[in-house]
Amino acid sequence: MSHSASSASHHSEPFDMVVVGGTGDLAHRKLLPALYYLHRHDDLPETGRIVAVAREETTREQFLQDLEKSCRQHVSPGDFTAEDWSSFAERLHYLAVDAANIESLGGLRTVLDDDGGTSRTRVFYLATPPNLYGTISRAIAEAGLIDDTSRIVLEKPIGHDLASASAINTAVGEVFAETQIYRIDHYLGKETVQNLISLRFANALFEPMWNSSHIDHVQITVAETLGVEGRGGYYDHAGALRDMVQNHILQLLCLTAMEPPSRLEQDFIRQEKIKVLRALRPMSRDDIAHKTVRGQYRPGIIDGKSVGGYLEEEDIRPSSRTETFVALKAEVDNWRWAGVPFYLRTGKAMGHRVSEIVIQFKTLPHNLFGSPAGALHDNRLVIRLQPDESIKLALMVKKPGVRLRLKRVHLNLNLADTFDERTPRAYERLLLDVLRGNATLFMHRDEVEAAWRWIEPILDGWKERGEAPRIYSAGSWGPAEAITLVLRDERNWYEQVV
Amino acid sequence: MSHSASSASHHSEPFDMVVVGGTGDLAHRKLLPALYYLHRHDDLPETGRIVAVAREETTREQFLQDLEKSCRQHVSPGDFTAEDWSSFAERLHYLAVDAANIESLGGLRTVLDDDGGTSRTRVFYLATPPNLYGTISRAIAEAGLIDDTSRIVLEKPIGHDLASASAINTAVGEVFAETQIYRIDHYLGKETVQNLISLRFANALFEPMWNSSHIDHVQITVAETLGVEGRGGYYDHAGALRDMVQNHILQLLCLTAMEPPSRLEQDFIRQEKIKVLRALRPMSRDDIAHKTVRGQYRPGIIDGKSVGGYLEEEDIRPSSRTETFVALKAEVDNWRWAGVPFYLRTGKAMGHRVSEIVIQFKTLPHNLFGSPAGALHDNRLVIRLQPDESIKLALMVKKPGVRLRLKRVHLNLNLADTFDERTPRAYERLLLDVLRGNATLFMHRDEVEAAWRWIEPILDGWKERGEAPRIYSAGSWGPAEAITLVLRDERNWYEQVV
Repeated sequence: MSHSASSASHHSEPFDMVVVGGTGDLAHRKLLPALYYLHRHDDLPETGRIVAVAREETTREQFLQDLEKSCRQHVSPGDFTAEDWSSFAERLHYLAVDAANIESLGGLRTVLDDDGGTSRTRVFYLATPPNLYGTISRAIAEAGLIDDTSRIVLEKPIGHDLASASAINTAVGEVFAETQIYRIDHYLGKETVQNLISLRFANALFEPMWNSSHIDHVQITVAETLGVEGRGGYYDHAGALRDMVQNHILQLLCLTAMEPPSRLEQDFIRQEKIKVLRALRPMSRDDIAHKTVRGQYRPGIIDGKSVGGYLEEEDIRPSSRTETFVALKAEVDNWRWAGVPFYLRTGKAMGHRVSEIVIQFKTLPHNLFGSPAGALHDNRLVIRLQPDESIKLALMVKKPGVRLRLKRVHLNLNLADTFDERTPRAYERLLLDVLRGNATLFMHRDEVEAAWRWIEPILDGWKERGEAPRIYSAGSWGPAEAITLVLRDERNWYEQVV
Repeated sequence: MSHSASSASHHSEPFDMVVVGGTGDLAHRKLLPALYYLHRHDDLPETGRIVAVAREETTREQFLQDLEKSCRQHVSPGDFTAEDWSSFAERLHYLAVDAANIESLGGLRTVLDDDGGTSRTRVFYLATPPNLYGTISRAIAEAGLIDDTSRIVLEKPIGHDLASASAINTAVGEVFAETQIYRIDHYLGKETVQNLISLRFANALFEPMWNSSHIDHVQITVAETLGVEGRGGYYDHAGALRDMVQNHILQLLCLTAMEPPSRLEQDFIRQEKIKVLRALRPMSRDDIAHKTVRGQYRPGIIDGKSVGGYLEEEDIRPSSRTETFVALKAEVDNWRWAGVPFYLRTGKAMGHRVSEIVIQFKTLPHNLFGSPAGALHDNRLVIRLQPDESIKLALMVKKPGVRLRLKRVHLNLNLADTFDERTPRAYERLLLDVLRGNATLFMHRDEVEAAWRWIEPILDGWKERGEAPRIYSAGSWGPAEAITLVLRDERNWYEQVV
């Protein structure tokens, strides 16, 4: 095992992590490779065990063989070594268990109780459909598998509207206290999100500018080139607003807009995020007509390849009106952000894969330079989460030469390049946080429900209007109406340089 | 001749430039090489002539031979070509003339009048001792060499106190209108100074931070490794305060502290600089004791070599009390800068050659991160003029990794590296400005005199106290008292990374 700068004192406490849905896609592509990385970098205590459970009757050997294949695929080649894999495999157990069934959980109990008498934190990671969260919670409680120190990790989507989210939260909450529940949003585990927080609160230079006096508007874009990719059955009943805006995009908005918390600790940050969600101006019927755009893609060309339309995808209803694109103009009604629009957009089958937060500063009050110096572009901070992670500040500088001519440059502010250390993957950070009991980057029940409270009237409004989504070609930046949405305010979407 | 992007429309108008003192050190090391560069980069109109005059009886051939040698030495090897030199030499004339003597100027008149009937701007560059500025001005006027379109360029030092500066300004002013007089300070021709102006006024991000609410203090350092280098006779009667602070350092302070001018034009910028000079808090007797430090170097080691003390240098009086180092705490009494000290220091025979302006931002009001994240360093902007030119912003960023650890990085904001174009030398820009009639980067009479008005009481106070200068070793950062000056305010001099 390679040894990083971390010492034993940084280790989490002894643990057993039970991955429910341990043979599934999420476990094999994300969770278990992330745990492999943590193991390789000596971030897990030696005694920590990982118990994958699923309903499939398979052997530990077969499970390990399949997982090794996945890890070779989802770990960088330089990071996958036979030595690390074999020591990692020693932590791994597999059990064929129906986690929703109390009797079936007996075998798991035997394994977990066989812990050499150490005191271990039990973590249940539910990589299962959300409608099972309540049932599984009750079953593991009734099977006597949990105590007050146990933790449960839930993947999105938590519900498809306020009532269902609330029902899931209530069901899980009957077994686990809120402090034991970790609702994961892997966007928040991104290095760049951490960097945004550092930039804002570790530098005297930005926070005084971070308000309506100096910021013209904010844009948050999450554009995917993929279509629904085998998730048609789920997606066609969800749509872009539920799938992306309710969770990822609103979380990014919260971190951008929140007041400085008094400490960087879970309760303090969550409180500030909830304040932002509650300050989102509710959309009236009129707003829904003018400040929201729904889109659905038709056939087009992405990266030079012909791509079919949404209606031709697998498991999509032929007359589906589900939106695969949404653009919104949101407003945060508080002292700091009054008059600063937050333009949000997300879509599938777009021309580029890019997730970015753009902070556009106001135009200079006065141009001293005159036309020979060239155009003055407004300052802009671009926080990119995908495809690469970066924070860039666009500034005007003088071009070298005897004359005073100005030019825009893009300064890289996170500078991961200047460090030797590897940028960890989002799931690594978040899993380590769960093991350490740090819920700062996880969502409180109140956040999930506050987000639904703002989203639901938009869903209702759309239903009431009964309009078909606007059409856009696969490979474009969405329907023309999304451009009109910002043009009406004399603004433009930031042209991503991908 | 190589052709830059400049087109004919950027050329200055037709001109004849008379360099008085044309065989001297300044002309050969700086002025004529700078004119060579302008010629090579096609920045001079084809008909422009350069007439070097000096009292020495020498031939044009001999003059050109000597000058070619200097240019080969003071122009970058890649920029000196036989072709450019020979076309440049066609512009050059040499005349043995005593410019203070009307009869002697007859020959110059013949040459200047032989201009093929073109209308040319006459520029007189006085690269002579300042006590001749008045006499030469009168002589060239009486010899009928000038008209309302003529210009005169004066090198520092203009006077050794307010009265002598004022006398020179008055004498020159009897012949030339203030708009015809170009008082040169080559520090203001530095690319970085232009960049500072661009940074402040072409970006919305800095100006709102540029005041006492956000800036803790400013430091300006001009440190030389050289001693007096053959200028002992002049220097021993001048000292560091007159030689460096009265002109270069106060000019840098003005550009850092001035309000945004309404336009980047000469009258507007000069007016703002004069306002800063007039806002400098006058030094009382008590201030002189506590806010100024005079130093004189003793033998020491610079760059591994033993160096003699000031008193052992050529032409220095054996009991000289002239300061070769000065540190001051200046204050600008206006709304923007109340309570923000400007620490100024300059010295000869120091450990490093470096000229820098350091803008130190205030400490964060609150540390959210706690000790595991590491020390939080204050933001800082470092504007370097020598030995290289750069603008660096020190920010805190997150170190990549699963934990939130912070680290300081130094971002390069002028980014000359990212441009192909060559950074011109200070004299190039300034000579071109003279030819174009742009006095933005030159000093108005009122500036020179306002600077003396603040400097003179310090000189008087020192004389009155009659103290010997504090001793420092050659190769050090000056006397211990200079460190105490800032330590008393719980601050430190910025440690130059050279």
